[in-house]
Amino acid sequence: MNKVLTVVKIGGNVVDNPTALQRFVSDFAALPMPKILIHGGGKEATRLSSALGIETIMLNGRRVTSRQTLDVVTMVYAGLVNKRVVSSLQAAGCNALGLSGADGNAITATKRPAEPVDFGFVGDIATTGVNTSLIQSLLNAGITPVFCAITHDSNGTLLNCNADSVATAVATAMAVITRTELIFCLEKDGVLSDINNPDSLIREINPLIYAELKQSGAVNSGMIPKIDNAFKAINAGVSSVTIKHSDNILNDRGTTIIP
Amino acid sequence: MNKVLTVVKIGGNVVDNPTALQRFVSDFAALPMPKILIHGGGKEATRLSSALGIETIMLNGRRVTSRQTLDVVTMVYAGLVNKRVVSSLQAAGCNALGLSGADGNAITATKRPAEPVDFGFVGDIATTGVNTSLIQSLLNAGITPVFCAITHDSNGTLLNCNADSVATAVATAMAVITRTELIFCLEKDGVLSDINNPDSLIREINPLIYAELKQSGAVNSGMIPKIDNAFKAINAGVSSVTIKHSDNILNDRGTTIIP
Repeated sequence: MNKVLTVVKIGGNVVDNPTALQRFVSDFAALPMPKILIHGGGKEATRLSSALGIETIMLNGRRVTSRQTLDVVTMVYAGLVNKRVVSSLQAAGCNALGLSGADGNAITATKRPAEPVDFGFVGDIATTGVNTSLIQSLLNAGITPVFCAITHDSNGTLLNCNADSVATAVATAMAVITRTELIFCLEKDGVLSDINNPDSLIREINPLIYAELKQSGAVNSGMIPKIDNAFKAINAGVSSVTIKHSDNILNDRGTTIIP
Repeated sequence: MNKVLTVVKIGGNVVDNPTALQRFVSDFAALPMPKILIHGGGKEATRLSSALGIETIMLNGRRVTSRQTLDVVTMVYAGLVNKRVVSSLQAAGCNALGLSGADGNAITATKRPAEPVDFGFVGDIATTGVNTSLIQSLLNAGITPVFCAITHDSNGTLLNCNADSVATAVATAMAVITRTELIFCLEKDGVLSDINNPDSLIREINPLIYAELKQSGAVNSGMIPKIDNAFKAINAGVSSVTIKHSDNILNDRGTTIIP
Protein backbone atom coordinates (compact mmCIF):
# COMPACT_ATOMS: atom_id res chain seq x y z
CA MET A 1 0.00 0.00 0.00
CA ASN A 2 1.41 3.37 -1.02
CA LYS A 3 -1.53 5.58 -0.23
CA VAL A 4 -2.51 7.10 3.10
CA LEU A 5 -4.72 4.88 5.25
CA THR A 6 -7.56 6.70 7.05
CA VAL A 7 -8.91 5.19 10.27
CA VAL A 8 -12.20 6.73 11.45
CA LYS A 9 -13.95 6.08 14.75
CA ILE A 10 -17.63 6.92 15.29
CA GLY A 11 -19.52 6.70 18.56
CA GLY A 12 -22.81 5.32 19.72
CA ASN A 13 -24.66 8.59 19.17
CA VAL A 14 -24.01 8.54 15.42
CA VAL A 15 -24.97 4.90 14.89
CA ASP A 16 -28.08 5.47 16.99
CA ASN A 17 -29.36 8.37 14.87
CA PRO A 18 -30.54 7.31 11.38
CA THR A 19 -30.12 10.81 9.89
CA ALA A 20 -26.63 11.35 11.33
CA LEU A 21 -25.59 7.83 10.34
CA GLN A 22 -26.85 8.24 6.77
CA ARG A 23 -24.94 11.52 6.38
CA PHE A 24 -21.82 9.99 7.86
CA VAL A 25 -22.06 6.85 5.69
CA SER A 26 -22.35 8.97 2.56
CA ASP A 27 -19.25 11.01 3.55
CA PHE A 28 -17.27 7.95 4.64
CA ALA A 29 -18.06 6.21 1.33
CA ALA A 30 -16.62 9.29 -0.44
CA LEU A 31 -13.32 9.15 1.51
CA PRO A 32 -10.48 7.78 -0.63
CA MET A 33 -9.42 4.19 0.02
CA PRO A 34 -7.73 2.58 1.89
CA LYS A 35 -9.84 3.23 4.98
CA ILE A 36 -11.05 1.49 8.14
CA LEU A 37 -14.09 2.28 10.28
CA ILE A 38 -14.44 1.54 13.99
CA HIS A 39 -17.81 2.04 15.67
CA GLY A 40 -19.32 2.10 19.14
CA GLY A 41 -22.92 1.39 20.06
CA GLY A 42 -23.21 2.01 23.78
CA LYS A 43 -26.58 3.75 23.72
CA GLU A 44 -28.23 0.84 21.93
CA ALA A 45 -26.56 -1.67 24.29
CA THR A 46 -27.89 0.23 27.32
CA ARG A 47 -31.37 0.25 25.76
CA LEU A 48 -31.34 -3.50 25.08
CA SER A 49 -30.00 -4.20 28.60
CA SER A 50 -32.82 -2.17 30.04
CA ALA A 51 -35.45 -3.96 27.91
CA LEU A 52 -34.07 -7.29 29.18
CA GLY A 53 -33.99 -6.13 32.80
CA ILE A 54 -30.18 -6.20 32.95
CA GLU A 55 -28.69 -3.40 35.01
CA THR A 56 -26.11 -1.19 33.28
CA ILE A 57 -23.17 -0.34 35.52
CA MET A 58 -20.62 2.17 34.25
CA LEU A 59 -17.33 2.74 36.14
CA ASN A 60 -14.89 5.42 34.95
CA GLY A 61 -16.80 5.53 31.66
CA ARG A 62 -16.40 1.77 31.09
CA ARG A 63 -19.25 -0.74 31.04
CA VAL A 64 -18.95 -3.42 33.71
CA THR A 65 -19.43 -6.53 31.58
CA SER A 66 -21.04 -9.54 33.22
CA ARG A 67 -21.66 -12.64 31.09
CA GLN A 68 -25.21 -11.40 30.40
CA THR A 69 -23.91 -7.95 29.44
CA LEU A 70 -21.27 -9.57 27.21
CA ASP A 71 -24.10 -11.30 25.33
CA VAL A 72 -25.91 -7.95 25.01
CA VAL A 73 -22.90 -6.04 23.66
CA THR A 74 -21.99 -8.92 21.34
CA MET A 75 -25.53 -8.83 19.93
CA VAL A 76 -25.65 -5.05 19.64
CA TYR A 77 -22.10 -4.18 18.54
CA ALA A 78 -21.18 -7.21 16.39
CA GLY A 79 -24.73 -7.88 15.18
CA LEU A 80 -27.22 -5.04 15.02
CA VAL A 81 -24.95 -2.02 14.71
CA ASN A 82 -22.15 -3.62 12.69
CA LYS A 83 -24.51 -5.07 10.07
CA ARG A 84 -26.55 -1.85 9.93
CA VAL A 85 -23.37 0.13 9.20
CA VAL A 86 -21.99 -2.45 6.76
CA SER A 87 -25.23 -2.76 4.76
CA SER A 88 -25.57 1.05 4.62
CA LEU A 89 -21.98 1.37 3.37
CA GLN A 90 -22.58 -1.35 0.77
CA ALA A 91 -25.61 0.60 -0.46
CA ALA A 92 -23.40 3.71 -0.68
CA GLY A 93 -20.90 1.85 -2.89
CA CYS A 94 -18.28 1.15 -0.20
CA ASN A 95 -17.26 -2.52 -0.06
CA ALA A 96 -17.42 -2.80 3.74
CA LEU A 97 -16.79 -6.00 5.69
CA GLY A 98 -17.66 -6.17 9.37
CA LEU A 99 -15.29 -7.71 11.88
CA SER A 100 -15.03 -8.42 15.55
CA GLY A 101 -11.58 -9.15 16.90
CA ALA A 102 -12.36 -12.88 16.81
CA ASP A 103 -12.96 -12.85 13.04
CA GLY A 104 -9.80 -13.95 11.28
CA ASN A 105 -8.13 -13.44 14.66
CA ALA A 106 -8.16 -9.73 13.75
CA ILE A 107 -7.63 -8.33 17.26
CA THR A 108 -6.57 -10.22 20.35
CA ALA A 109 -7.10 -8.62 23.75
CA THR A 110 -6.25 -9.50 27.34
CA LYS A 111 -8.96 -9.73 29.98
CA ARG A 112 -8.43 -6.90 32.43
CA PRO A 113 -7.32 -8.15 35.85
CA ALA A 114 -10.11 -8.25 38.45
CA GLU A 115 -8.01 -6.01 40.74
CA PRO A 116 -8.34 -3.17 41.66
CA VAL A 117 -11.74 -3.08 39.87
CA ASP A 118 -13.45 -6.13 38.35
CA PHE A 119 -14.89 -4.96 35.03
CA GLY A 120 -15.81 -8.53 34.05
CA PHE A 121 -15.38 -9.45 30.39
CA VAL A 122 -13.49 -6.28 29.46
CA GLY A 123 -10.36 -6.47 27.35
CA ASP A 124 -7.31 -4.32 26.78
CA ILE A 125 -5.50 -4.38 23.45
CA ALA A 126 -1.77 -4.22 22.89
CA THR A 127 -0.60 -2.91 19.51
CA THR A 128 0.85 -6.39 18.93
CA GLY A 129 -2.68 -7.78 19.28
CA VAL A 130 -3.69 -6.28 15.91
CA ASN A 131 -3.44 -8.71 12.97
CA THR A 132 -2.03 -6.22 10.47
CA SER A 133 -1.45 -8.85 7.78
CA LEU A 134 -5.17 -9.74 7.72
CA ILE A 135 -6.14 -6.06 7.62
CA GLN A 136 -3.61 -5.31 4.90
CA SER A 137 -4.81 -8.19 2.73
CA LEU A 138 -8.42 -7.01 3.07
CA LEU A 139 -7.41 -3.45 2.17
CA ASN A 140 -5.37 -4.71 -0.79
CA ALA A 141 -8.49 -6.55 -2.00
CA GLY A 142 -10.41 -3.24 -2.03
CA ILE A 143 -12.34 -4.09 1.13
CA THR A 144 -13.05 -1.60 3.92
CA PRO A 145 -12.93 -3.31 7.34
CA VAL A 146 -15.61 -2.14 9.80
CA PHE A 147 -14.69 -3.05 13.36
CA CYS A 148 -16.95 -3.24 16.35
CA ALA A 149 -15.33 -3.13 19.80
CA ILE A 150 -15.77 -6.84 20.56
CA THR A 151 -12.48 -8.76 20.60
CA HIS A 152 -11.38 -12.16 21.87
CA ASP A 153 -8.62 -13.68 23.98
CA SER A 154 -7.81 -16.46 21.41
CA ASN A 155 -9.02 -19.04 23.93
CA GLY A 156 -12.70 -18.83 23.11
CA THR A 157 -13.71 -15.88 25.26
CA LEU A 158 -15.10 -12.70 23.71
CA LEU A 159 -14.13 -9.44 25.39
CA ASN A 160 -15.77 -6.01 25.42
CA CYS A 161 -13.31 -3.26 24.51
CA ASN A 162 -13.48 0.49 24.23
CA ALA A 163 -14.01 1.61 20.62
CA ASP A 164 -11.57 4.56 21.02
CA SER A 165 -8.93 2.10 22.22
CA VAL A 166 -9.64 -0.25 19.30
CA ALA A 167 -9.23 2.68 16.88
CA THR A 168 -5.98 3.72 18.56
CA ALA A 169 -4.57 0.18 18.52
CA VAL A 170 -5.54 -0.41 14.88
CA ALA A 171 -4.17 2.95 13.69
CA THR A 172 -0.95 2.55 15.68
CA ALA A 173 -0.35 -0.99 14.41
CA MET A 174 -1.08 -0.04 10.80
CA ALA A 175 1.20 3.04 11.06
CA VAL A 176 4.17 0.66 11.21
CA ILE A 177 3.26 -0.52 7.69
CA THR A 178 1.81 2.54 6.00
CA ARG A 179 1.19 6.26 6.49
CA THR A 180 -1.94 6.35 8.69
CA GLU A 181 -4.33 9.11 9.74
CA LEU A 182 -6.78 8.75 12.61
CA ILE A 183 -10.03 10.68 13.05
CA PHE A 184 -12.10 10.47 16.24
CA CYS A 185 -15.66 11.65 15.55
CA LEU A 186 -17.87 13.41 18.06
CA GLU A 187 -21.18 15.22 17.96
CA LYS A 188 -19.19 18.43 18.51
CA ASP A 189 -16.79 20.20 16.16
CA GLY A 190 -13.81 19.05 18.22
CA VAL A 191 -12.36 20.03 21.59
CA LEU A 192 -14.02 23.22 22.84
CA SER A 193 -12.45 25.66 25.28
CA ASP A 194 -15.98 26.36 26.55
CA ILE A 195 -18.19 23.31 26.41
CA ASN A 196 -21.30 25.51 26.22
CA ASN A 197 -20.00 27.52 23.25
CA PRO A 198 -19.83 25.56 19.96
CA ASP A 199 -17.74 28.43 18.46
CA SER A 200 -14.92 27.91 20.98
CA LEU A 201 -13.25 25.19 18.90
CA ILE A 202 -9.56 24.71 19.69
CA ARG A 203 -7.85 24.06 16.35
CA GLU A 204 -4.67 22.52 17.79
CA ILE A 205 -3.79 20.86 21.06
CA ASN A 206 -0.23 20.15 22.16
CA PRO A 207 0.76 18.63 25.52
CA LEU A 208 1.11 22.09 27.10
CA ILE A 209 -2.33 23.27 26.00
CA TYR A 210 -3.79 19.91 27.05
CA ALA A 211 -2.31 20.28 30.54
CA GLU A 212 -3.85 23.76 30.80
CA LEU A 213 -7.26 22.53 29.58
CA LYS A 214 -7.27 19.77 32.16
CA GLN A 215 -6.16 22.18 34.89
CA SER A 216 -8.91 24.68 34.06
CA GLY A 217 -11.52 21.93 33.80
CA ALA A 218 -12.34 22.88 30.19
CA VAL A 219 -11.99 19.25 29.10
CA ASN A 220 -14.28 16.97 31.05
CA SER A 221 -13.91 13.43 32.25
CA GLY A 222 -15.46 11.93 29.10
CA MET A 223 -13.03 13.78 26.82
CA ILE A 224 -9.82 13.00 28.75
CA PRO A 225 -9.52 9.29 27.76
CA LYS A 226 -10.23 10.28 24.13
CA ILE A 227 -7.48 12.93 24.08
CA ASP A 228 -5.16 10.53 25.92
CA ASN A 229 -5.79 7.98 23.15
CA ALA A 230 -5.16 10.69 20.54
CA PHE A 231 -1.76 11.57 22.07
CA LYS A 232 -0.92 7.88 22.41
CA ALA A 233 -1.56 7.43 18.68
CA ILE A 234 0.38 10.50 17.51
CA ASN A 235 3.33 9.61 19.75
CA ALA A 236 3.35 6.04 18.42
CA GLY A 237 3.75 6.96 14.78
CA VAL A 238 0.28 7.80 13.47
CA SER A 239 0.84 10.68 11.01
CA SER A 240 -2.19 12.77 11.89
CA VAL A 241 -4.77 12.57 14.65
CA THR A 242 -7.85 14.81 14.65
CA ILE A 243 -11.02 15.07 16.74
CA LYS A 244 -13.99 16.15 14.60
CA HIS A 245 -17.74 16.27 14.25
CA SER A 246 -18.99 13.18 12.37
CA ASP A 247 -20.32 15.62 9.73
CA ASN A 248 -16.81 16.98 9.03
CA ILE A 249 -14.69 14.01 8.00
CA LEU A 250 -14.34 15.41 4.46
CA ASN A 251 -13.25 18.91 5.56
CA ASP A 252 -10.62 20.44 7.82
CA ARG A 253 -12.79 21.61 10.70
CA GLY A 254 -11.71 19.95 13.93
CA THR A 255 -9.02 19.75 16.59
CA THR A 256 -5.59 18.53 15.50
CA ILE A 257 -3.35 16.80 18.03
CA ILE A 258 0.23 18.11 17.96
CA PRO A 259 2.84 15.83 19.59
CA MET B 1 -8.01 -24.39 -5.16
CA ASN B 2 -7.37 -28.02 -6.05
CA LYS B 3 -8.71 -29.69 -2.95
CA VAL B 4 -12.29 -30.61 -2.15
CA LEU B 5 -14.27 -27.85 -0.46
CA THR B 6 -16.52 -28.99 2.39
CA VAL B 7 -19.60 -26.90 3.22
CA VAL B 8 -21.24 -27.78 6.54
CA LYS B 9 -24.55 -26.47 7.86
CA ILE B 10 -25.48 -26.69 11.56
CA GLY B 11 -28.83 -25.78 13.06
CA GLY B 12 -30.05 -23.81 16.03
CA ASN B 13 -30.12 -26.84 18.33
CA VAL B 14 -26.37 -27.37 18.05
CA VAL B 15 -25.38 -23.73 18.57
CA ASP B 16 -27.78 -23.56 21.52
CA ASN B 17 -26.21 -26.50 23.36
CA PRO B 18 -22.71 -25.74 24.72
CA THR B 19 -21.71 -29.43 24.91
CA ALA B 20 -22.94 -30.27 21.39
CA LEU B 21 -21.37 -27.08 20.01
CA GLN B 22 -18.01 -27.78 21.65
CA ARG B 23 -17.94 -31.31 20.24
CA PHE B 24 -18.94 -30.07 16.81
CA VAL B 25 -16.36 -27.24 16.86
CA SER B 26 -13.62 -29.68 17.72
CA ASP B 27 -14.62 -32.00 14.84
CA PHE B 28 -15.10 -29.13 12.38
CA ALA B 29 -11.65 -27.75 13.26
CA ALA B 30 -10.23 -31.20 12.40
CA LEU B 31 -11.87 -31.29 8.93
CA PRO B 32 -9.34 -30.63 6.18
CA MET B 33 -9.39 -27.17 4.60
CA PRO B 34 -10.87 -25.58 2.55
CA LYS B 35 -14.18 -25.53 4.40
CA ILE B 36 -17.13 -23.25 5.05
CA LEU B 37 -19.61 -23.30 7.95
CA ILE B 38 -23.20 -22.04 7.82
CA HIS B 39 -25.19 -21.85 11.05
CA GLY B 40 -28.73 -21.23 12.21
CA GLY B 41 -29.83 -19.89 15.58
CA GLY B 42 -33.61 -19.99 15.58
CA LYS B 43 -34.07 -21.23 19.14
CA GLU B 44 -32.01 -18.37 20.56
CA ALA B 45 -33.88 -15.85 18.36
CA THR B 46 -37.22 -17.11 19.61
CA ARG B 47 -35.98 -16.84 23.20
CA LEU B 48 -34.76 -13.25 22.74
CA SER B 49 -38.02 -12.29 20.98
CA SER B 50 -39.96 -13.71 23.89
CA ALA B 51 -37.82 -11.85 26.46
CA LEU B 52 -38.48 -8.62 24.53
CA GLY B 53 -42.22 -9.28 24.25
CA ILE B 54 -42.05 -9.74 20.47
CA GLU B 55 -44.36 -12.44 19.17
CA THR B 56 -42.75 -15.19 17.07
CA ILE B 57 -44.85 -16.15 14.07
CA MET B 58 -43.76 -19.15 11.99
CA LEU B 59 -45.44 -19.93 8.65
CA ASN B 60 -44.45 -23.06 6.69
CA GLY B 61 -41.37 -23.32 8.92
CA ARG B 62 -40.22 -19.76 8.10
CA ARG B 63 -40.06 -16.92 10.60
CA VAL B 64 -42.29 -13.97 9.69
CA THR B 65 -39.78 -11.14 9.97
CA SER B 66 -41.11 -7.72 11.00
CA ARG B 67 -38.62 -4.88 11.43
CA GLN B 68 -38.40 -5.68 15.15
CA THR B 69 -37.84 -9.36 14.42
CA LEU B 70 -35.21 -8.46 11.81
CA ASP B 71 -33.32 -6.59 14.57
CA VAL B 72 -33.62 -9.66 16.83
CA VAL B 73 -32.34 -12.14 14.24
CA THR B 74 -29.55 -9.74 13.20
CA MET B 75 -28.45 -9.51 16.83
CA VAL B 76 -28.71 -13.25 17.49
CA TYR B 77 -27.47 -14.74 14.20
CA ALA B 78 -24.84 -12.18 13.10
CA GLY B 79 -23.85 -11.17 16.64
CA LEU B 80 -24.27 -13.63 19.49
CA VAL B 81 -24.22 -16.96 17.65
CA ASN B 82 -21.79 -16.05 14.89
CA LYS B 83 -19.19 -14.65 17.29
CA ARG B 84 -19.67 -17.51 19.75
CA VAL B 85 -18.97 -20.00 16.93
CA VAL B 86 -16.08 -17.98 15.47
CA SER B 87 -14.33 -17.48 18.82
CA SER B 88 -14.76 -21.20 19.67
CA LEU B 89 -13.29 -22.19 16.29
CA GLN B 90 -10.38 -19.76 16.79
CA ALA B 91 -9.69 -21.40 20.16
CA ALA B 92 -9.73 -24.79 18.40
CA GLY B 93 -7.09 -23.61 15.92
CA CYS B 94 -9.42 -22.96 12.97
CA ASN B 95 -8.97 -19.49 11.47
CA ALA B 96 -12.68 -18.69 11.21
CA LEU B 97 -14.11 -15.38 9.99
CA GLY B 98 -17.79 -14.62 10.45
CA LEU B 99 -19.85 -13.12 7.67
CA SER B 100 -23.35 -11.98 6.95
CA GLY B 101 -24.29 -11.58 3.32
CA ALA B 102 -23.74 -7.82 3.61
CA ASP B 103 -20.07 -8.26 4.58
CA GLY B 104 -17.92 -7.85 1.51
CA ASN B 105 -21.22 -8.15 -0.42
CA ALA B 106 -20.83 -11.90 0.18
CA ILE B 107 -24.46 -12.90 -0.49
CA THR B 108 -27.16 -10.80 -2.09
CA ALA B 109 -30.79 -11.84 -1.69
CA THR B 110 -34.14 -10.63 -3.00
CA LYS B 111 -36.92 -9.68 -0.61
CA ARG B 112 -39.69 -12.22 -1.01
CA PRO B 113 -42.81 -10.70 -2.62
CA ALA B 114 -45.59 -9.85 -0.15
CA GLU B 115 -48.02 -12.03 -2.15
CA PRO B 116 -49.36 -14.65 -1.52
CA VAL B 117 -47.88 -14.50 2.01
CA ASP B 118 -46.08 -11.49 3.46
CA PHE B 119 -43.07 -12.85 5.33
CA GLY B 120 -41.67 -9.35 5.89
CA PHE B 121 -37.87 -8.99 5.70
CA VAL B 122 -37.25 -12.47 4.36
CA GLY B 123 -34.91 -13.01 1.43
CA ASP B 124 -34.41 -15.63 -1.23
CA ILE B 125 -30.96 -16.27 -2.68
CA ALA B 126 -30.15 -17.04 -6.29
CA THR B 127 -26.90 -18.93 -6.94
CA THR B 128 -25.74 -15.79 -8.77
CA GLY B 129 -26.15 -13.87 -5.49
CA VAL B 130 -23.12 -15.63 -3.97
CA ASN B 131 -19.84 -13.68 -4.26
CA THR B 132 -17.62 -16.65 -5.07
CA SER B 133 -14.53 -14.51 -5.72
CA LEU B 134 -14.65 -13.11 -2.17
CA ILE B 135 -15.17 -16.59 -0.72
CA GLN B 136 -12.38 -18.04 -2.85
CA SER B 137 -9.92 -15.33 -1.82
CA LEU B 138 -10.71 -15.93 1.85
CA LEU B 139 -10.25 -19.69 1.41
CA ASN B 140 -6.99 -19.11 -0.47
CA ALA B 141 -5.79 -17.02 2.48
CA GLY B 142 -6.36 -19.99 4.81
CA ILE B 143 -9.53 -18.49 6.29
CA THR B 144 -12.69 -20.48 7.04
CA PRO B 145 -15.81 -18.37 6.36
CA VAL B 146 -18.62 -18.81 8.91
CA PHE B 147 -21.93 -17.58 7.52
CA CYS B 148 -25.04 -16.69 9.45
CA ALA B 149 -28.32 -16.58 7.54
CA ILE B 150 -28.58 -12.78 7.41
CA THR B 151 -28.08 -11.36 3.91
CA HIS B 152 -28.76 -8.00 2.25
CA ASP B 153 -30.41 -6.64 -0.89
CA SER B 154 -27.41 -4.36 -1.79
CA ASN B 155 -29.64 -1.33 -1.17
CA GLY B 156 -29.14 -1.10 2.57
CA THR B 157 -31.76 -3.59 3.74
CA LEU B 158 -30.80 -6.71 5.67
CA LEU B 159 -32.84 -9.84 4.97
CA ASN B 160 -33.49 -12.95 7.04
CA CYS B 161 -32.79 -16.12 5.05
CA ASN B 162 -33.07 -19.81 5.75
CA ALA B 163 -29.72 -21.31 6.76
CA ASP B 164 -30.33 -24.49 4.71
CA SER B 165 -30.96 -22.30 1.67
CA VAL B 166 -27.79 -20.27 2.35
CA ALA B 167 -25.79 -23.52 2.55
CA THR B 168 -27.34 -24.79 -0.68
CA ALA B 169 -26.69 -21.51 -2.52
CA VAL B 170 -23.08 -21.27 -1.28
CA ALA B 171 -22.27 -24.92 -2.09
CA THR B 172 -23.94 -24.72 -5.51
CA ALA B 173 -22.13 -21.50 -6.44
CA MET B 174 -18.75 -22.81 -5.23
CA ALA B 175 -19.28 -26.11 -7.10
CA VAL B 176 -18.84 -24.19 -10.36
CA ILE B 177 -15.27 -23.35 -9.28
CA THR B 178 -14.16 -26.37 -7.28
CA ARG B 179 -15.22 -29.86 -6.24
CA THR B 180 -17.65 -29.24 -3.36
CA GLU B 181 -19.28 -31.46 -0.74
CA LEU B 182 -22.26 -30.38 1.35
CA ILE B 183 -23.22 -31.75 4.77
CA PHE B 184 -26.50 -30.84 6.47
CA CYS B 185 -26.26 -31.57 10.19
CA LEU B 186 -29.18 -32.66 12.35
CA GLU B 187 -29.56 -33.99 15.86
CA LYS B 188 -30.41 -37.34 14.27
CA ASP B 189 -28.18 -39.72 12.37
CA GLY B 190 -29.82 -38.75 9.07
CA VAL B 191 -33.17 -39.46 7.45
CA LEU B 192 -34.98 -42.19 9.37
CA SER B 193 -37.63 -44.51 7.90
CA ASP B 194 -39.26 -44.51 11.34
CA ILE B 195 -38.84 -41.20 13.14
CA ASN B 196 -39.21 -42.96 16.51
CA ASN B 197 -36.48 -45.48 15.78
CA PRO B 198 -32.94 -44.05 15.67
CA ASP B 199 -31.71 -47.34 14.15
CA SER B 200 -33.90 -46.92 11.06
CA LEU B 201 -31.33 -44.76 9.24
CA ILE B 202 -31.74 -44.71 5.46
CA ARG B 203 -28.23 -44.75 4.01
CA GLU B 204 -29.18 -43.51 0.55
CA ILE B 205 -32.11 -41.58 -0.85
CA ASN B 206 -32.80 -41.24 -4.55
CA PRO B 207 -35.83 -39.45 -6.05
CA LEU B 208 -37.86 -42.67 -6.12
CA ILE B 209 -37.19 -43.50 -2.46
CA TYR B 210 -37.87 -39.86 -1.55
CA ALA B 211 -41.26 -39.97 -3.29
CA GLU B 212 -42.13 -43.12 -1.35
CA LEU B 213 -41.02 -41.60 1.97
CA LYS B 214 -43.18 -38.55 1.36
CA GLN B 215 -46.11 -40.73 0.33
CA SER B 216 -45.86 -42.90 3.44
CA GLY B 217 -45.43 -39.87 5.69
CA ALA B 218 -42.06 -41.15 6.96
CA VAL B 219 -40.43 -37.76 6.25
CA ASN B 220 -42.19 -34.96 8.06
CA SER B 221 -42.84 -31.35 7.11
CA GLY B 222 -39.63 -30.07 8.72
CA MET B 223 -37.48 -32.54 6.80
CA ILE B 224 -39.02 -32.00 3.34
CA PRO B 225 -37.48 -28.54 2.65
CA LYS B 226 -34.10 -29.88 3.82
CA ILE B 227 -34.23 -32.90 1.48
CA ASP B 228 -35.52 -30.61 -1.31
CA ASN B 229 -32.46 -28.38 -0.76
CA ALA B 230 -30.24 -31.47 -0.76
CA PHE B 231 -31.61 -32.63 -4.15
CA LYS B 232 -31.33 -29.08 -5.50
CA ALA B 233 -27.63 -29.03 -4.57
CA ILE B 234 -26.78 -32.49 -5.96
CA ASN B 235 -28.63 -31.73 -9.20
CA ALA B 236 -26.80 -28.40 -9.56
CA GLY B 237 -23.30 -29.85 -9.49
CA VAL B 238 -22.40 -30.34 -5.82
CA SER B 239 -20.35 -33.56 -5.76
CA SER B 240 -21.75 -35.08 -2.59
CA VAL B 241 -24.65 -34.15 -0.34
CA THR B 242 -25.22 -35.91 3.00
CA ILE B 243 -27.56 -35.44 5.94
CA LYS B 244 -25.85 -36.35 9.22
CA HIS B 245 -25.81 -35.97 12.98
CA SER B 246 -23.62 -33.02 13.98
CA ASP B 247 -21.46 -35.57 15.87
CA ASN B 248 -20.70 -37.50 12.67
CA ILE B 249 -19.07 -35.03 10.28
CA LEU B 250 -15.76 -36.90 10.48
CA ASN B 251 -17.25 -40.34 9.75
CA ASP B 252 -19.48 -41.91 7.12
CA ARG B 253 -22.67 -42.40 9.13
CA GLY B 254 -25.55 -40.49 7.53
CA THR B 255 -27.92 -40.33 4.60
CA THR B 256 -26.41 -39.77 1.16
CA ILE B 257 -28.48 -38.06 -1.51
CA ILE B 258 -28.33 -39.84 -4.88
CA PRO B 259 -29.40 -37.75 -7.88
